[in-house]
Amino acid sequence: MDKRKRMREIQQVQIQKYNGLIHGIFYSSPSPPVLSLKLLILPIQTHQISTQIFASPLFSRLVLRNSSSIIPRRKLSLHQSSIAIVIVIEIILLFMATLISDSAPWKDLKAHVSDINKKHLRDLMTDTDRCKSMMLEFDEIFLDYSRQCATLDTMSKLFKLAEAAHLKQKITSMFNGEHINSTENRSVLHVALRASKDTKINCDGKNVVPDVWQVLDKIKEFSDKIRNGSWVGATGKKLTNVIAIGIGGSFLGPLFVHTALQTDPEASKSAGGRQLRFLANVDPVDVARNITGLDPETTLVVVVSKTFTTAETMLNARTLREWISSALGPQAVSKHMVAVSTNLKLVEKFGIDPNNAFAFWDWVGGRYSVCSAVGVLPLSLQYGFPVVEKFLKGASSIDQHFLSAPFEKNIPVLLGLLSVWNVSFLEYPARAILPYTQALEKLAPHIQQVSMESNGKGVSIDGVRLPFEAGEIDFGEPGTNGQHSFYQLIHQGRVIPCDFIGIVKSQQPVYLKDEVVNNHDELMSNFFAQPDALAYGKTPEQLKSENVASHLIPHKTFTGNRPSLSLLLPSLDAYRIGQLLAIYEHRIAVEGFIWGINSFDQWGVELGKSLASQVRKQLHASRKKGESVEGFNFSTTKMLTRYLEASADVPSEPTTLLPKI
Amino acid sequence: MDKRKRMREIQQVQIQKYNGLIHGIFYSSPSPPVLSLKLLILPIQTHQISTQIFASPLFSRLVLRNSSSIIPRRKLSLHQSSIAIVIVIEIILLFMATLISDSAPWKDLKAHVSDINKKHLRDLMTDTDRCKSMMLEFDEIFLDYSRQCATLDTMSKLFKLAEAAHLKQKITSMFNGEHINSTENRSVLHVALRASKDTKINCDGKNVVPDVWQVLDKIKEFSDKIRNGSWVGATGKKLTNVIAIGIGGSFLGPLFVHTALQTDPEASKSAGGRQLRFLANVDPVDVARNITGLDPETTLVVVVSKTFTTAETMLNARTLREWISSALGPQAVSKHMVAVSTNLKLVEKFGIDPNNAFAFWDWVGGRYSVCSAVGVLPLSLQYGFPVVEKFLKGASSIDQHFLSAPFEKNIPVLLGLLSVWNVSFLEYPARAILPYTQALEKLAPHIQQVSMESNGKGVSIDGVRLPFEAGEIDFGEPGTNGQHSFYQLIHQGRVIPCDFIGIVKSQQPVYLKDEVVNNHDELMSNFFAQPDALAYGKTPEQLKSENVASHLIPHKTFTGNRPSLSLLLPSLDAYRIGQLLAIYEHRIAVEGFIWGINSFDQWGVELGKSLASQVRKQLHASRKKGESVEGFNFSTTKMLTRYLEASADVPSEPTTLLPKI
Repeated sequence: MDKRKRMREIQQVQIQKYNGLIHGIFYSSPSPPVLSLKLLILPIQTHQISTQIFASPLFSRLVLRNSSSIIPRRKLSLHQSSIAIVIVIEIILLFMATLISDSAPWKDLKAHVSDINKKHLRDLMTDTDRCKSMMLEFDEIFLDYSRQCATLDTMSKLFKLAEAAHLKQKITSMFNGEHINSTENRSVLHVALRASKDTKINCDGKNVVPDVWQVLDKIKEFSDKIRNGSWVGATGKKLTNVIAIGIGGSFLGPLFVHTALQTDPEASKSAGGRQLRFLANVDPVDVARNITGLDPETTLVVVVSKTFTTAETMLNARTLREWISSALGPQAVSKHMVAVSTNLKLVEKFGIDPNNAFAFWDWVGGRYSVCSAVGVLPLSLQYGFPVVEKFLKGASSIDQHFLSAPFEKNIPVLLGLLSVWNVSFLEYPARAILPYTQALEKLAPHIQQVSMESNGKGVSIDGVRLPFEAGEIDFGEPGTNGQHSFYQLIHQGRVIPCDFIGIVKSQQPVYLKDEVVNNHDELMSNFFAQPDALAYGKTPEQLKSENVASHLIPHKTFTGNRPSLSLLLPSLDAYRIGQLLAIYEHRIAVEGFIWGINSFDQWGVELGKSLASQVRKQLHASRKKGESVEGFNFSTTKMLTRYLEASADVPSEPTTLLPKI
Repeated sequence: MDKRKRMREIQQVQIQKYNGLIHGIFYSSPSPPVLSLKLLILPIQTHQISTQIFASPLFSRLVLRNSSSIIPRRKLSLHQSSIAIVIVIEIILLFMATLISDSAPWKDLKAHVSDINKKHLRDLMTDTDRCKSMMLEFDEIFLDYSRQCATLDTMSKLFKLAEAAHLKQKITSMFNGEHINSTENRSVLHVALRASKDTKINCDGKNVVPDVWQVLDKIKEFSDKIRNGSWVGATGKKLTNVIAIGIGGSFLGPLFVHTALQTDPEASKSAGGRQLRFLANVDPVDVARNITGLDPETTLVVVVSKTFTTAETMLNARTLREWISSALGPQAVSKHMVAVSTNLKLVEKFGIDPNNAFAFWDWVGGRYSVCSAVGVLPLSLQYGFPVVEKFLKGASSIDQHFLSAPFEKNIPVLLGLLSVWNVSFLEYPARAILPYTQALEKLAPHIQQVSMESNGKGVSIDGVRLPFEAGEIDFGEPGTNGQHSFYQLIHQGRVIPCDFIGIVKSQQPVYLKDEVVNNHDELMSNFFAQPDALAYGKTPEQLKSENVASHLIPHKTFTGNRPSLSLLLPSLDAYRIGQLLAIYEHRIAVEGFIWGINSFDQWGVELGKSLASQVRKQLHASRKKGESVEGFNFSTTKMLTRYLEASADVPSEPTTLLPKI
């Protein structure tokens, strides 16, 4: 942006006064502001200053973001009333309080809904030019979104919305390491985790790519040692099995990739009979399931927790430490347990050699961490680093595409915009993720987390309560299994936009002589059929012409006009799995960028945690000291008391007991 | 109902004429009719008769339901115009075309929503009497629904709605074997599958319980033989592993129960190292995953398909037949494969001894079939019949409770009514199923099917398009895993009513010396904390008093007022698993009964199937004869062509190839 234009923009910043007091700074441009203000002088009369000014979320944000202000931050946040002039330099107004729903393109799209509601997909699909324009290809990945309830007009309106939301700049800011996770004052740089060695990605003035590769190299070396047996367990046996302990992002992402690689011929060959298991739930039943059939002598445990304080993960870590040390002695722990963490102090205190801790960084959100040591370590142990490196390369290829492709040809951008269209305008609250291969069984649970934790927010990034609902409910099962489960509702009940994901070349082709089609073709017949079934439906007239009994016609009628999109991947190897992951990660970011929310924090999980602490204390006090339940509401008191009474046989001072299964 | 009252009701039946033609028979009572009309004479003038009359869905239904009419059914359905007077006797008007949304209690509840929206759960929870009334216990199962956005007034209005929907009669009709699945003209009698031997349950005049027990006894005998080794494989080895092939209801229910029993001490001991796997997806990747590590010599395959024609199941059955016969010779098939089916002809043709086929019946819907041979056979093979019998007893105990308990104390009825309240009145489209134990990992996927396939309908049981949305989106993961995944959205995004399910006594307790609480207590701390976090939320005032930085207050605010209910089970053994299953089955039926839909058909899955056939034919023709893609729309043609081109290396006349993994 040139200087003159910038100065023009500055003049559009308005200071809103009420009762003589400044209580907000508003930007009056029709579109939300995305600019660097080089110099903004706010003349504030001493007598006008009150705590009200500084207590306003907006003002605090302005100040907090002012990283190079000449006024020290604390001085302002202390609500001092002596400041006469505040000089704010280099304020990044990226996400100021203007809501996207106030923008003209949003309103235009709202008005456009009635046009679209007049059209049936049955008719839209006859327009060949439209369909042609709604297909694209990148690196042999084929996207067909012609079965969205949208026209080319809708698309151009969506691109205008993207402009109003400054999508391009937001994407660039993410890749540039700006602190776009403003509530936690952090960069969002999972793209750096898969950048090639020669890339430069700065975070707070420092290129992070060398740090990333240092850890990757360390993982490569360590996993080689474990796999080739130059690192052995306490009794000298090779460690052929790994249990990775972690929850949320330290679990779902790695599990998704593991499940997808399991039947890939190359990965399966590299695994060579090794086992990888994931212990996430603090439920001791999950401990039992994980240790069943494993011998501590041949098992390596990876504890994944950034702070090494996650309640579930640490209790499970202590449980497996007990499993190891009760079998092999306490000195075995350092041979059988390693960590993915940044808290080296706690790692050491736990009994793990800090040299065997693999780092990641503040700029990696849990749900975006599968490409960090969180996923790379356990996956490299199972499949060898070269396979995992291909996975990283796949993700990186989409990063480049996302950053550089024009929006009309940009897969994550298109998918993100279409999701916003479906959620915010057509008002469909859910999305079904339907991969037509069992290898992608854990895609939906992973994306469910990435999407619902990222975008399940009620306020804008500036803390303004949203007048629309952001985020959607993501769920799904592999086809054809889902067809025999919840597709009934999708076809004849509520409208749920569907993602169909198909694979050209099966990981495990099966041919039987004399079959009409081979097994993969049988599977894919469904992949090709379902989108049309949803789009076209079936009319009473068609049914009548087929002589369907009249009383059954309403039941066999399909209204159709149900949107879906189809992604066809050439194969499902490590590289393609990485691409698929990155497509979804960026699509979800696009949605958040448009909605103007912070897709990278997760304050919504805090309250449950703190209330659980209170219950934990109560259970402790009741079990150990017989104290009665106090400080809870009637219902919780009743239920807790009942629980304690019904489990009165639990020993108050137990001796150690592990599952025997 | 006494005779006089019935006659009064009859007078309220009106015949609607249009252009001199009868084209509908409507019931004018303010509540939908549920009565047996003893005698109804419809004087229809010959000249008034046209095909229109008989083509009307309503009329056809009337005639179809007339099981004891003196007029033969076919005569009418052939649209004969010679009938002057139709005497209809004993028409069961159970589900006539009156929609529940036209009833006074429905409208009353609609009006009541604004009352409820004025109340916050924070306040409702202070009313101890209300909370007391919203808890109940049956057979040590404790239900607390005080955190529903509902008052005692709401409940009494819901009971009135149940009355208007004739819920009681519908439940009774189900247990009495009436053909309540009217579109398929079938009874719905999964309750008979778990009835004790001395019970009498009639279906079309015949007590079906002896048939049920004949199959159960046969399963007991057969599973004993396999388990004790008196039945061995073709090479004389014991069959210690079972692969059950089936999809949808033949998969999700048995998988749920298997997953839940796996870590139950009694069941796990009975399993004694045996393995049970499920092959559902027609994807050859699923074949690869299932046969990995298994030896055909020690494996028994159970093929589950009522008609023995389900496309996926039969292709998978042929694939595993090949796996067995290529390793052990074709004569091994009859020793290594058995069937759950009623089509003995096809079973025999396939190569399975029809004596080794286990029957079930037309009155068992797929998604309600886990208590038939579909689930009982594979589960008995794995855990022994006595364990499975306990599971059946658990389900049966809830059947009796559901049939006989007054609605105020009836768990499935209460849960069903509250779901209707959440879905149809508070307009929450989804429901989260959150069991706090990893053993219930597959509960949500199973209930997702039972619920969404049952209630995902767009028309009433009489074929009238619904003016409201029935069914909900069911999803869930075990706690605490879900807390680290999608709970963010549940706490701060969209409102999603939650089912919390807790267990007093863990299947696999773990105690570590010197921990604050034991592992199961740690898990349960979350079970008790989350419902209050959702109900109460956290206000900006609370945050201010905790000195939270002002710019973070909006992000850390929780609006609360998010409904949930809590179910606390004393333990999770086979009996309790059966109870949990039946609670959900009946709850879903209650919802369907209230909405006035047919929860027992699934026409919505048909269209996809028939379109898949067309694709299959095309793939066959293209692969074998090089035919180009024809008869599809532009998009599908493009995608299919691309698929065929990219997989041109697939052999047109392949030799048999099985996964090598």
